[in-house]
Amino acid sequence: MRDAFHDELDALSDQLVEMTRLVHSAVSRATTALLDADLDLAESVIAADEQLDAIHHDLEERSYDLLARQQPVATDLRIIVAGLRMSADLERMGDLARHLAQVARMRYPSSAIPADIRAITAQMGAVAGRIVLKAGSVVADKDVKAALELERDDDEMDALHRQLFTVLLDDDWGQGVEAAIDLTLIGRYYERFADHAVAVARRVVYLVTGEHPTPEQVAAV
Amino acid sequence: MRDAFHDELDALSDQLVEMTRLVHSAVSRATTALLDADLDLAESVIAADEQLDAIHHDLEERSYDLLARQQPVATDLRIIVAGLRMSADLERMGDLARHLAQVARMRYPSSAIPADIRAITAQMGAVAGRIVLKAGSVVADKDVKAALELERDDDEMDALHRQLFTVLLDDDWGQGVEAAIDLTLIGRYYERFADHAVAVARRVVYLVTGEHPTPEQVAAV
Repeated sequence: MRDAFHDELDALSDQLVEMTRLVHSAVSRATTALLDADLDLAESVIAADEQLDAIHHDLEERSYDLLARQQPVATDLRIIVAGLRMSADLERMGDLARHLAQVARMRYPSSAIPADIRAITAQMGAVAGRIVLKAGSVVADKDVKAALELERDDDEMDALHRQLFTVLLDDDWGQGVEAAIDLTLIGRYYERFADHAVAVARRVVYLVTGEHPTPEQVAAV
Repeated sequence: MRDAFHDELDALSDQLVEMTRLVHSAVSRATTALLDADLDLAESVIAADEQLDAIHHDLEERSYDLLARQQPVATDLRIIVAGLRMSADLERMGDLARHLAQVARMRYPSSAIPADIRAITAQMGAVAGRIVLKAGSVVADKDVKAALELERDDDEMDALHRQLFTVLLDDDWGQGVEAAIDLTLIGRYYERFADHAVAVARRVVYLVTGEHPTPEQVAAV
């Protein structure tokens, strides 16, 4: 039998998982909005960010309440403080998805994504979607193996980010400075998005194992 | 007479103020490294970031220890959790200063800053330095008025950031795509730096007043 306190901890964890679901939806739709120059979709991502902010705020208040009422120590204490930080990471990932949608909105009815960048953008969007789904599994199931896999997805994102700059800096780049600026920011948003997902996963690994993941563990997955 | 617990809270606050001092030094030197294409200075900023990471880590451990040993409630609890977040903001500001220095290093022996962008970059650096110094005063003196002033500095940073894009997107821009990409990232780093300083100040305002600063309060300063 779980006690009421641990039920409340589980409820916090459920809220984090719900945030990963909303963030996944946001980044997936933002990517489509960018690729298809879809204004309605972009607007829906921008509007939906409020919901994430509200959950983040609610999770904060409940965490403080739990800290004050239950005076948890050791592991329970670390779970709550780590949860506060994961919530902040996920809230920020929502902001970054919103920034992507804002670029799509700013360039509408044109697309911010030139033809020769579509494939890289679609891949960055796919990796972003995958990495936040995995972060959800890591939080829900305390799955350390998935957490280590997710670091590999982040390496893939970094490789795509470098590939993007290679295209932008190629002598054949003919899309001008405005498109290069948009894509520099878009690339940065995706890269930071993945970094925050990694941060979420690492906090879970630390909670479960008491240690930060080593490069050897990541390489061995 | 303060008790030992409140002495420990003061020590955490002192550590945060020390972080603002190191971050100020980092962003000021990174700006000079960019403007003067000074490789040694850039390297010194990159190397010094470890020290900030170490303080952040130490502050985290001491905060957890304090939470576990003292079981603080209400205001004391919020002070410690807010301190953890301010420390994370300041650590991130150090990362952003390091990113600025890394751009300077990457472009050495050239400067990443073309002649027509020098003035804006110097101003962004000056605002960044000023805003983190104010954040230090806000943390040290719980100075709500300085916290509100600092929001105005952030508005100035946003205006400089917009001005930077105006220059980059001008038809007369003749520095090519690589310089535009560098400057897009540099502008983003300064802007995020200021955002984190605002976050630090807002946390102090919230601790002191129990409320988040309103736009009216900010406008009235």
